Amino acid sequence: MVDSLAELKERLSWVGDLDKVGRLLSWDQQTMMPAAGAAIRADQLGTLRRVSHELLTSDETGRLLDEVRGLEETLPPDSDDACLIRLARRDYDKAVRVPAALRAEMTSAAAQAQPVWVKARATSDFSMFLPALERNVELRRSYIACFDSADEPYDILLDDFEPDTTTADVRRIFDELKPELLSLVADLRDQEVDDSFLRGDFPVDRQRALAHEVVELFGMRPDTWRLDPTVHPFASGAGIDDIRMTTSYDPTALKSLFSTMHEYGHGLYNHQLPSELGRLPTGGPCSLGLHESQSRLWENLVGRSVPFWRFFLPRVKEAFPEQLGEVDFDRFLGGINRVRPSLIRTRADEVTYGLHVILRFELEQDIVSERVELAELPEAWRAKMEEYLGVEVLDDAQGVLQDTHWAVGLIGYFPTYLLGTVMSVQIWEKATSDLPSLEDEIEQGEFGPLREWLGAHVHRYGRRFSPQETLKRATGSTIDAKPYLAYLRTKYGLGVAD
Amino acid sequence: MVDSLAELKERLSWVGDLDKVGRLLSWDQQTMMPAAGAAIRADQLGTLRRVSHELLTSDETGRLLDEVRGLEETLPPDSDDACLIRLARRDYDKAVRVPAALRAEMTSAAAQAQPVWVKARATSDFSMFLPALERNVELRRSYIACFDSADEPYDILLDDFEPDTTTADVRRIFDELKPELLSLVADLRDQEVDDSFLRGDFPVDRQRALAHEVVELFGMRPDTWRLDPTVHPFASGAGIDDIRMTTSYDPTALKSLFSTMHEYGHGLYNHQLPSELGRLPTGGPCSLGLHESQSRLWENLVGRSVPFWRFFLPRVKEAFPEQLGEVDFDRFLGGINRVRPSLIRTRADEVTYGLHVILRFELEQDIVSERVELAELPEAWRAKMEEYLGVEVLDDAQGVLQDTHWAVGLIGYFPTYLLGTVMSVQIWEKATSDLPSLEDEIEQGEFGPLREWLGAHVHRYGRRFSPQETLKRATGSTIDAKPYLAYLRTKYGLGVAD
Repeated sequence: MVDSLAELKERLSWVGDLDKVGRLLSWDQQTMMPAAGAAIRADQLGTLRRVSHELLTSDETGRLLDEVRGLEETLPPDSDDACLIRLARRDYDKAVRVPAALRAEMTSAAAQAQPVWVKARATSDFSMFLPALERNVELRRSYIACFDSADEPYDILLDDFEPDTTTADVRRIFDELKPELLSLVADLRDQEVDDSFLRGDFPVDRQRALAHEVVELFGMRPDTWRLDPTVHPFASGAGIDDIRMTTSYDPTALKSLFSTMHEYGHGLYNHQLPSELGRLPTGGPCSLGLHESQSRLWENLVGRSVPFWRFFLPRVKEAFPEQLGEVDFDRFLGGINRVRPSLIRTRADEVTYGLHVILRFELEQDIVSERVELAELPEAWRAKMEEYLGVEVLDDAQGVLQDTHWAVGLIGYFPTYLLGTVMSVQIWEKATSDLPSLEDEIEQGEFGPLREWLGAHVHRYGRRFSPQETLKRATGSTIDAKPYLAYLRTKYGLGVAD
Repeated sequence: MVDSLAELKERLSWVGDLDKVGRLLSWDQQTMMPAAGAAIRADQLGTLRRVSHELLTSDETGRLLDEVRGLEETLPPDSDDACLIRLARRDYDKAVRVPAALRAEMTSAAAQAQPVWVKARATSDFSMFLPALERNVELRRSYIACFDSADEPYDILLDDFEPDTTTADVRRIFDELKPELLSLVADLRDQEVDDSFLRGDFPVDRQRALAHEVVELFGMRPDTWRLDPTVHPFASGAGIDDIRMTTSYDPTALKSLFSTMHEYGHGLYNHQLPSELGRLPTGGPCSLGLHESQSRLWENLVGRSVPFWRFFLPRVKEAFPEQLGEVDFDRFLGGINRVRPSLIRTRADEVTYGLHVILRFELEQDIVSERVELAELPEAWRAKMEEYLGVEVLDDAQGVLQDTHWAVGLIGYFPTYLLGTVMSVQIWEKATSDLPSLEDEIEQGEFGPLREWLGAHVHRYGRRFSPQETLKRATGSTIDAKPYLAYLRTKYGLGVAD
């Protein structure tokens, strides 16, 4: 049985290697690849996925999993090997249910839909995108049909992004958030806050220097990361010692700092995953929600906080003296924390952001349960934007077409953004309670204690446990909307001045 | 049988995809990867190689090859499918002979030897490198033993780099070259040639701009390539529309131009491979020798020629007016073509270069046939350097330790450098005979006709035929040392002025 376990580990390591290679290829595609390479790249990514899937779902993997069943029962359930076998069985059971032909079709439908979406968004023409969307949704329904029926069909999709989390779990949290967020927006939307200084002349070379400075300041082993410019920021990499972050520089606005801090949070999580688990699946990140909790923590709890800017504002003023020289501390903090309903999720502030996600979560359930005709999606989107945020969607490019997720078949992904945001506050509160001097340290530009706390309390679990169990081990509690709501109320009710 | 062929093609495409992914990962490692990523990268490359090897050598591949045997016999031998089946059978037959364990050991021994070599070279300490070299050589002997005995054991190694070319074939060419090169060196070594202007202050940013200008001038579809700086220049890529070239910038010398032209030659070959063969093995480059013929053609036949510099010298003078403003045409041409025996192969001129390669070819045969003790290799190296080039090897870093090939297990690779150089002249002569106005066009900065000729006469065959058959189709002749020797004699005997 021990030999079977060793063999199983080796196979799973190969699967993990191929998946990480695929991630690196995607990074390369978005940062380095000559444009004409896209077709070859699609073939190569397809081959990697196919080979990795065949390795995972082979009879050999099934046989090894059977052989270690006895061993598993004798192991302490929290031990590394028990976690590994449990997780491997979960991944295997899910993977073998989906016929290779369906998986290939999902992949190619997504690959075909993506450029259609780019074009449809550019011309704000939803009808152009509709057939591709219909195809993606239809394939998702076939995918759902591969599994035993769940309480709700959406559960099946959600589980791929936030394991062991049901639609009902998410609804419970979002139902608690929604009225409170609506009320906060109503209270804050008409406040006069000046953030005009955040737009203007911000030369890209100085933004780039500052972005690198932020990563160095927050801290990551110097020979393990890089930060490159992309249109849409993301974090990826080939493993814990090879972290690739990207950010987006707009010469007319100071946004790159926040997207850099966000991606740093993702990057640090990937960097501090449990190295002792090597290339095993348990050594990966836990879930998209938990990943997002890390990016939101660094972007918002650190990156929009008073202590951080006490330390860092002088540095940013030095970089952009013409733009920011005359902006005092309170005005700066107010500006970067301004609440203002707007059309685009990725540019939303901390208060309105959640409503963007709730809107998508609701529409996705309607789509999967066929409660909405896809052709009527733009209208449903407009109605909800009007209702939740009081903004008028003038064209679909800034409405239903704004995100790439549905174009590449990702349905069930959006809720993890808000779950992560909610969890980020729970994790932050536990960190500040464990580290009473944390805010002082941040005000001194000291981020080591926070980094280490996150490593020891969140990152080190990797993918051993479910997201909620991981969160509970980190904070003592499963997901809870209250700390997040209290944080927002405190931040905005009492103002941001200290 | 047609279905079997389609299935075979699909499998071979996967193998090709994984191999190209591996090449891209190696490119990334040398250009982009954070240094600490090396260990993870080694694992991932190992997994790719293993999986690709298992796909190629699987029973399934063997069965498909058996099934298409009947079909193969009915096909015209030059047809794409006949070439493919022949090549696939060759690759399969070679791959199945080598046990997976030996292959894995060769890979890991090479991976372990490489950093030892780096350190040994840095301290010029051959004894530090000796055990790693012994291990590599021993494994190569085991590798040779996997195959039916050839006329000479070195044949087995050579065949991996220059298929269907024997040690005797190489010896015949090199034996013809050697006395002639020795005599040319004797004639030219003491000529007074001033190349001092090639050293001095050459700012890297201007060298970089010029290197990109050279690639654009020679021509490659603009959205298909990139050129990055590395310590050791190379050309790689993920496919015909994704060409990655590198070059090396030395702020104190104008060498990057020539390494850029060299890598352009490799890149153009990869770019002009037969696209109709897609991802099949027949769509790859033919051999290392033929690859090198392309790099040497652009670096030397074009890049050190009178017509090219008639066009390009004014541009280079403009980039470096302080360094080159006062250098007249003849002095420039003389300088870049100066013959001077020296220690390092990669910096050798066109005349002495061949002797560097012949020295390695002779020593490699002695190693494989156990005619030399590995511990005595430095001494054997010194003796030959003294004999062939009349230079004294003061330390092993500039002697036996200068190249990385033996450290990574590549024995049998070196001869292809000189075979390629010889073939480059045969190909050039056929091109100039087919295109009588070629030199005029080059003098006008027109490279399209040469590019297209190479595409139509060399590149388009891909890997369908052996290198010698490919050369014969391109030039009407197999490899022949005479044109190369005549070229050198003309170039240096009559001087370089027009």
